[in-house]
Amino acid sequence: MKIYFVLSVVVFLMVFFSSTKAQTTVLEDFKPSSLNQPGQEYPQVNSQGYARFKIVAPDAKSVKVTLGLGGKGGTELKKDAEGNWVGTTEGPLDKGFHYYHLIIDGGVFNDPGTLNFYGSVRWESGIEIPAPDADFYALKNVPHGKVQQILFHSKSTNSEKRAFVYTPPGYDQDQSKRYPVLYLQHGWGEDETAWSNQGHANLIMDNLIAEGKTKPFIIVMTYGMTNEIKFGSGLRNFNIEPFQTVLIDELIPYIDSNFRTLSDQPNRAMAGLSMGGMETKTITMKNLDKFAYIGLLSGGTFSLEDVNNTPGFKEKVKLAFVSFGSREIENQGNRGWGGNPKENAEAIKNAGINSVFYVSPETAHEFLSWRRSLKELAPLLFKN
Amino acid sequence: MKIYFVLSVVVFLMVFFSSTKAQTTVLEDFKPSSLNQPGQEYPQVNSQGYARFKIVAPDAKSVKVTLGLGGKGGTELKKDAEGNWVGTTEGPLDKGFHYYHLIIDGGVFNDPGTLNFYGSVRWESGIEIPAPDADFYALKNVPHGKVQQILFHSKSTNSEKRAFVYTPPGYDQDQSKRYPVLYLQHGWGEDETAWSNQGHANLIMDNLIAEGKTKPFIIVMTYGMTNEIKFGSGLRNFNIEPFQTVLIDELIPYIDSNFRTLSDQPNRAMAGLSMGGMETKTITMKNLDKFAYIGLLSGGTFSLEDVNNTPGFKEKVKLAFVSFGSREIENQGNRGWGGNPKENAEAIKNAGINSVFYVSPETAHEFLSWRRSLKELAPLLFKN
Repeated sequence: MKIYFVLSVVVFLMVFFSSTKAQTTVLEDFKPSSLNQPGQEYPQVNSQGYARFKIVAPDAKSVKVTLGLGGKGGTELKKDAEGNWVGTTEGPLDKGFHYYHLIIDGGVFNDPGTLNFYGSVRWESGIEIPAPDADFYALKNVPHGKVQQILFHSKSTNSEKRAFVYTPPGYDQDQSKRYPVLYLQHGWGEDETAWSNQGHANLIMDNLIAEGKTKPFIIVMTYGMTNEIKFGSGLRNFNIEPFQTVLIDELIPYIDSNFRTLSDQPNRAMAGLSMGGMETKTITMKNLDKFAYIGLLSGGTFSLEDVNNTPGFKEKVKLAFVSFGSREIENQGNRGWGGNPKENAEAIKNAGINSVFYVSPETAHEFLSWRRSLKELAPLLFKN
Repeated sequence: MKIYFVLSVVVFLMVFFSSTKAQTTVLEDFKPSSLNQPGQEYPQVNSQGYARFKIVAPDAKSVKVTLGLGGKGGTELKKDAEGNWVGTTEGPLDKGFHYYHLIIDGGVFNDPGTLNFYGSVRWESGIEIPAPDADFYALKNVPHGKVQQILFHSKSTNSEKRAFVYTPPGYDQDQSKRYPVLYLQHGWGEDETAWSNQGHANLIMDNLIAEGKTKPFIIVMTYGMTNEIKFGSGLRNFNIEPFQTVLIDELIPYIDSNFRTLSDQPNRAMAGLSMGGMETKTITMKNLDKFAYIGLLSGGTFSLEDVNNTPGFKEKVKLAFVSFGSREIENQGNRGWGGNPKENAEAIKNAGINSVFYVSPETAHEFLSWRRSLKELAPLLFKN
């Protein structure tokens, strides 16, 4: 009987707190978002995760922010006494980074208060809701690696292509040391700036290395939409060949001849988020002689079929890392990702694969899921 | 008499052409600006240098572009049959890069068609009017250097500061080679991104090096508004000390210990545009034991007084480079720049200084003046 009593109390408290949560008063401790342009007071975020906006457009008919509770519908702003358009999200937003924009009189514009981040095939406004674990991607007084912009010639596309390369702290001091390399891809509508801008990949690595939690390695981030997918055409028309050619035949040789890399298969990894996960899976499974560590971040899973039908998988793949945000798992169930990701991860683990499955708590298909995934993935790389 | 006849014809032709110019029909060969976001058709530029804008905001009352003939007043857009706001500048714009923004219903927003560039203490829209000499800053199939983002700890400000470092092609191949360094500063309201984003400093160097026109050297670009000048407070309140401390005591030692530099005075230069020129002049003249080459780009001049009143100037300064856009000279005459810049340059040349004065044709206080100035300056550096 005792256990039922305890359970009843727990259920009561759960119902009580979820109902009080809905009635929570919005705390007036709003501060400028950390991603605001220098000197800009808005947008602001409070300690509960509510976002507040203020837009100057005195003669506008309507101003809306495409950001709101659960991402549904956004937030309509209202004109205040001074003629500014102001408004607060109906509820708290998920922790971490969100893209958004304004709809002013029916047109799409960015919030002049914030920095821009490339997503949805445009430079979008960005806002940051402080996460309880924000320290792991914070800019701190630790030795810093560098993020280098490189331009390399691509014969297959007859163009000069751009990539960003993270080299760890100390890379320039000890000229005899060589490093393993992770190729890390962005998602659909993003570009090669995403992982260092909104992903903070460099700061995550600086902090992990400072704490001795990961081997130092190089990260290469390039543009994965080589065949120029337009809005609306969608992933169905995605052809991996153009990007695979740039990556395998052009970028990897460039990196191996311009950086002090360890260029054998056990020292090369590839990971990607969303569409970049799909690219990672497709490319690595065709090129297991080149990649030993594979990470799919909100971008598919490895099934037992994948393992069994891919010659060499068991011998060559040293890590099959799969991660999602918890809200993706809740929302998708076991649909849409090529089978239940957790079950898939367990099945290939039982088949002898070094399979790691990670779920980011209380995040969706957004960058905090992927920052956390990189933090989990990095220490597992280049161990064998 | 003959000479008067010739002069009359010349005057007639000048009047004739200037009046026909005003009546010139706008050629309908508009193409998307090279700085547009991927896939965006507008803004567009024609072969004469007119700019055309199209903004979607069907319910707006008014849409204006802060870009127009002579920078005066901007361009009012009008609603077309499909409900888009469209308009073309009244006349051709100067060649090169221009910052601008939209004023929609009284509020300041960016054009969603273009990339953003940091200027005027905000991320502004940018447009590029093709220049006849655009080839020198074009992205071409030549060996490319790298632009590296570095983060260095600043004790004096108790913060982690950012800089971008250009290393020339080949820097990573020959590990025994060391390079001279140019410290290159942005203008007021800009930041450390300006010289590589809108300035194309890396491409200018890549192209000069490929043609054998300059020694390869390192360029360091950092943030020069250390004391956080706000809009309106102006340059009068500028105190050089905070930035000088970061540059001299923190950044230079960081660069010399993290890059393969030649760290003696004959191998260090400083240059800057506008406010960055003022900073360059102030800092180098106090630190002639550290800098041998000095460049002021639309940012002051060196007078004979400067030379005579600065101990060591004649012995230590290997180059005093001063440049302006031609329209600055026209507009300013000999006011506002500490004396007539051309006369100043000649006076110090006569006093034995290696003084070089350059005027960029048909450009104003804008980036094409400074791209061209860097192209002129680079080959003169580190010669002695």
